[in-house]
Parts: sequence; structure tokens; C-alpha cells
Amino acid sequence: MKLPGKIAIMGGGSWATALAKIVLSTQDSINWYMRRQDQVDDFLKTGHNPSYLSAVKFDTDKIKFYTDINDAINDSDTLIFATPSPFLKQHLMKVTTPLNDKFIISAIKGIVPDENMLIADYFTEYYNVPMENIAVIGGPCHAEEIALERLSYITLACSNIDNARAVAHVFQNQYLNNYCCKDVRGIEYASVLKNVYAIVAGICHGMKYGDNFLAVFICNAIEEMRNFLNSVHSLERDVTDSVYLGDLLVTAYSRFSRNRTFGTMIGKGYSVKIAQLEMEMIVEGYYGTKCIHEINEKYKVNMPILDALYDILYERKSPTTVIRQLTETFK
Amino acid sequence: MKLPGKIAIMGGGSWATALAKIVLSTQDSINWYMRRQDQVDDFLKTGHNPSYLSAVKFDTDKIKFYTDINDAINDSDTLIFATPSPFLKQHLMKVTTPLNDKFIISAIKGIVPDENMLIADYFTEYYNVPMENIAVIGGPCHAEEIALERLSYITLACSNIDNARAVAHVFQNQYLNNYCCKDVRGIEYASVLKNVYAIVAGICHGMKYGDNFLAVFICNAIEEMRNFLNSVHSLERDVTDSVYLGDLLVTAYSRFSRNRTFGTMIGKGYSVKIAQLEMEMIVEGYYGTKCIHEINEKYKVNMPILDALYDILYERKSPTTVIRQLTETFK
Repeated sequence: MKLPGKIAIMGGGSWATALAKIVLSTQDSINWYMRRQDQVDDFLKTGHNPSYLSAVKFDTDKIKFYTDINDAINDSDTLIFATPSPFLKQHLMKVTTPLNDKFIISAIKGIVPDENMLIADYFTEYYNVPMENIAVIGGPCHAEEIALERLSYITLACSNIDNARAVAHVFQNQYLNNYCCKDVRGIEYASVLKNVYAIVAGICHGMKYGDNFLAVFICNAIEEMRNFLNSVHSLERDVTDSVYLGDLLVTAYSRFSRNRTFGTMIGKGYSVKIAQLEMEMIVEGYYGTKCIHEINEKYKVNMPILDALYDILYERKSPTTVIRQLTETFK
Repeated sequence: MKLPGKIAIMGGGSWATALAKIVLSTQDSINWYMRRQDQVDDFLKTGHNPSYLSAVKFDTDKIKFYTDINDAINDSDTLIFATPSPFLKQHLMKVTTPLNDKFIISAIKGIVPDENMLIADYFTEYYNVPMENIAVIGGPCHAEEIALERLSYITLACSNIDNARAVAHVFQNQYLNNYCCKDVRGIEYASVLKNVYAIVAGICHGMKYGDNFLAVFICNAIEEMRNFLNSVHSLERDVTDSVYLGDLLVTAYSRFSRNRTFGTMIGKGYSVKIAQLEMEMIVEGYYGTKCIHEINEKYKVNMPILDALYDILYERKSPTTVIRQLTETFK
């Protein structure tokens, strides 16, 4: 396998669009799979993604669009998946062509619901992709800032670090740096947990807890994350690296984070159901909370923040009471 | 020595005022030293500090004001110092009464300029206060949020942890929690460094670096802080505790932080001199940068962020060039 070969972007959301912009800054052309033909038609007509990051203009001569996922896979060597995790399964259900000779890069920050499986594990288990041919992208990287070409840093993880390094140059330009490591599972779990914590940060913000408290909250969250990661996937890592702490910060501090916004609504008194209806984009952390909670039934890591959010979202407990109790565990 | 005994607040700024509010929530009365008689007169007339946190009303029957520092010291057992570090020396120059039988709590976030000494060391060296009778207060704690009674957390450090615990109840009420530890020097250095880093965060913000970058910056800053603390004062500590990381976060993310604001002005193109003139309050990090830079000549810790700021503030190097070079060291 020669890496990266022909690259396909799999998905049509904002992060997929940001990744397409990045990859086109280093590659002559890309393949791009989007589910809906009308979106592709509009894209070709206007030169930008009609629904996301529409300020980013593309040279559509350099893009080959696909609405058939199997065609896209057959024509590509490296597949960058960037769909919301709750939709991955239904996309992949349509796949009949083999994936086991492809290099998979997951830019999905989430867990496959129902299965409670990490994305990398899911590709290995159900599509026979060798673990060494699966990489994940993590790090603090709002798509909106990629659109503005503001300097950002990502981390590429692959169990075979040489493979990560072989594709790293694709993600290196004047506004993007990258770093390679081997912590696939740690980074996948971290990117789920940061959404969980961003919801809680939003709840506290909605309840008028202030900046002093948010700072303390982040410290307790990163400690909880470290304890969980070290228990589920023992490996030397430093949670203050940007792929862990940085990603948590950019999500929990951002007023644009949909997870945080979802939390803020709950903190202000909206019911979970109404808050969900109000959010037009997928709130990954809602599903992530349940997944991690179930996974942790096996590991039994002390996770007061995760448990508090689970109680609020799934046990319909009072946010006021739950958060007050949570604050007593902090230091 | 019975702790805390009679408590005196030493200083009249916003943090001193917030501390007075806290102490009066747990003690019947306090002594309060302020340099200027006109400020005391106005305070007594209006029932609030005329210059800082003026929304916080005090029952002045519970406050005994002093403009003579020796009288304040003689009448008190525990002295909470909360003056800007550059002014500490000139306050203490007036002290003729012994301090060696007092319990000193430093709420000063800084280093004694010229001496390049930590506050605790300064009291020990020049005023013969035993180290076990010196505590420091640290943690993410904007005075403005104490005024609003928003839940906050501080850390009290003393080499004799029993002494820290003996005064901890003074700082425990419905909006304030505390935690005790022994890392006096680490916390003192951390509270200097966080101001240094807040200035750099401001510079980057002023130059239009975005949230992705700020998150990466914080991760690199906390790593630099850890390396420095472990070199200058070896002790088991976790820099993700709120007194280290939390304090950095609340300062670097706050648009109200004067250190960050000072940096933002430089990032927007103001000269260092003009930025200093524009700031009406003391920018601790300006002095802290020079102090730590000089201290680090001995330890030679790799501190690219500190060095970059030193070059900008004291070597008059171009912020654009220095920051661009700095970003290349990040991951």
C-alpha cells in the first residue's frame, strides 16, 4: 500500500468540508462522497458546500463527487471519514465493496452507538481493516477556523506510527501543523469525553456558574479523563497534550460548540427533549454520555462528571441538584 | 500561636477587597490596612471600597481601618497581604514592629522585583518569619466573581500543612471552597507564570490567532510551567490541579485579565511603552517575565514561551516574528 494514494472525503458536513479544503491545499485533486445528489448539484453550481462553511470556495475541477459510497471507495486508496458518529453505521450499511485494502482515517469524534465501539474497532471488527491501516485525527480544530486559515494543530494517531507519518504531509500547510502518535484508542475516547464535558460546561454556564468555576471544572474534567483513559487503554500519554486537553478546552470554552450550547439550554431550564429539538445539528456528547457510561460499567472508573450528566440526560434528574452535588467533589 | 487569631487585610485593591468580603463571611470582625486616609474616609462614608468592587457593601462596624502599617500589625495575629508585588517592598519598608510572631498569608501573585524572590522567601529572609508560619493563597479566583458570590475554589499552601488547615475554615463559605497542600514555592511561581502566559495569550489574540491556537498554546504553556516547577522546586505535584492549570485558564481566557489585555494591545501593534501607559492597573506579568527569565539563567529550563515574551518586552523584538517562531515549537 502506497500512502496516501488517492484520497476521498467521506461526508458532507462542516468538518468534512474543512478537511477537503486542507487536503486540496496539498493534493492535486480529491474524491468526495456526499449522500445527497441535490447537495452535490448545488455544490457544483455555486463552487461551495451549500450547507456548511459556505464561505470556502472550491475549484470543483479538482473534486470528483460521488453519491454512491461504493464507487467512491473503489476509486480511492485513503478514505477520510467525517460523518457524525450516529450516522456512520447507516452509511457503511451500503458498503458492499471491500475496505480491507484501504487506509482509513477517522475524523469522527464519537462512538458507534448501540455497539459502544470505537470507530477504529468498528472498522476492524466489521470490515476487516487491519488496525495498522486505521488512523484517527484529533486535536483542537474548529472547522470554522480552518475556513479562516487560522493556525491550528492536529494529531494523527495510528498503531503503526510510520503509517501516520506517511500521511501526515497531507495535513501540513501554512495554517495547519500536525503531530503523530500511537494512541488511537485514547484519542478516540478523549474526543468523545470532551463533548460530554462540554455539555456539562454548558449546563454550568446556563446556571450562571462563572469563569472561576469553569476553570476548576476543566481541571477536574481532565483528571477524570486521565483516569478513564489510563484504565481502558494503558499507554504512556500526557493528557496535557493538545489532542486531549486542547480539544477539551476549545470545545468547553467555545460559545459555538453545539455540545456546549445544548448544555447551556439545559442549564437555563429547557428540558432535555426540547433542547434536543432546538439543536439542528447532531449533539455527539448526548450519545457519547450513554456509551461511555455503559463502557464504564466494566471498568468502574470514578467519573463523577460523566455520571452527573448521565443522571441529567437519561435519568431526568434535576440539573440544579445534580450539579450542586458534583461541585462538592471538586477541588 | 493560635490560628487564625485576629485577621488583618493588608492592601486596598480589588483582591484585598474580595478577601475582606470572604473573611467577614466567617469572622466577626477584621482589621484592614490601607495606605491612604482619604480612601478610608470614603470607605467609611459610603460603606464600600471607593476604588474597587464598589458594589460590595460592607458593615463598617465590623472593620477597624488602619493607615499605619505598624498599628495594623501590632493589633493582628494573621496578616493577609494582597498588594501588587511591585509595591510590597515599599509597604514593608515602613514596618518597624516584628513580624516573626505573626502568621503571614500571601495573596500576592508575583515576585519581589529586584530581589527576584518569592514572597514567602522574602518574609523569611528579611523579616525572620518561620516558613511554617507563611501560607500562600492560589487558584482561579477573579475578585469580580467573589463579589458576585459565584462558586470558586482556592488552594492554601503552607510547608506545615496543619497550619494551612487551621486557617482554611476562614476561606470556606457557601461560594468558596478550599483545598490545602504544601507546595508554597510551586504555587508562587505558578501564579507568576500564569500572568506571563496570559500576556502571550493576549498578544496572540491581538494578532488574530484563534481559539484552536489558544487551546494549543495553553497546552504548551502548562507543559513549560511543569518543567520549570519541577526544576526549581522538586515536589510531587499535578499541574492539572486547579491552582496551576485552573489559574492559568481563568487568566488566559479572561477578557478582563489586565495581563491579557496588555498583551492584546501589543499584539494589535501598540508599543510596549504605550501599552503600559494605557493600562491603569499594575501588569504583574511584565515584571514576572523579567524575574523568571533571570531566575531561569540558573536552572536553564527550556522555556520558549517565556523567552519569546522576554524578547518582545525587554529586547524590543518584533512580536510578529517572535510569535511566528514560537508557534513552530508547539505541538
